[in-house]
Amino acid sequence: MSNCLFCKIINKEIPSEILYEDDRVIAFKDVNPQAPVHILVIPKEHIESANDVDEGNSDVIGHIFAVINRLVKELGIDKDGYRIVNNCGEFGGQTVSHIHFHILGGRQLLWPPG
Amino acid sequence: MSNCLFCKIINKEIPSEILYEDDRVIAFKDVNPQAPVHILVIPKEHIESANDVDEGNSDVIGHIFAVINRLVKELGIDKDGYRIVNNCGEFGGQTVSHIHFHILGGRQLLWPPG
Repeated sequence: MSNCLFCKIINKEIPSEILYEDDRVIAFKDVNPQAPVHILVIPKEHIESANDVDEGNSDVIGHIFAVINRLVKELGIDKDGYRIVNNCGEFGGQTVSHIHFHILGGRQLLWPPG
Repeated sequence: MSNCLFCKIINKEIPSEILYEDDRVIAFKDVNPQAPVHILVIPKEHIESANDVDEGNSDVIGHIFAVINRLVKELGIDKDGYRIVNNCGEFGGQTVSHIHFHILGGRQLLWPPG
């Protein structure tokens, strides 16, 4: 998607602090961190939101969670804990129309989650 | 897991308002809702947290997101939007040691997410 901010990050047209990359996903630092550790993990495939995940493409979501598991251990936040957040649409607060998973750690996350 | 609250819900030893069930996952209403719509989706397999998801069991996470897609449409929150939250460990605010995905909708979710 030529106008998608995250596709441009995937294609290295826009710089980002990349922490992990393979053929299906990429992880990079959120530019507006809401916690001491705040990472985004996204599929390289342009899936707009959780509304567009079905049995045909959901395997990459499972892969994202396997990647998150490795990332949180590398970042040293696995033992204290963290929160994974996906925003869909206006009420969810989604700001980029390319599905992304926020990982927030390094502080106590509160309840409700926004 | 005999002492797990969510395994007891899966086994119908504890009642819950079940919205969806198949051989791998179950969805039910959160007993302490933080939004007009607040659902939990969990795997029937006892996976403790996101720290325990790897390539060997991550397919059920993808399936959970495909189920969420169907659920939000049935609940009529897909167009306005919603937030999906997974808490891991103390900093994440995890209160039951059986991985679960919160779906919150029906109101504007705020930022930061807790």
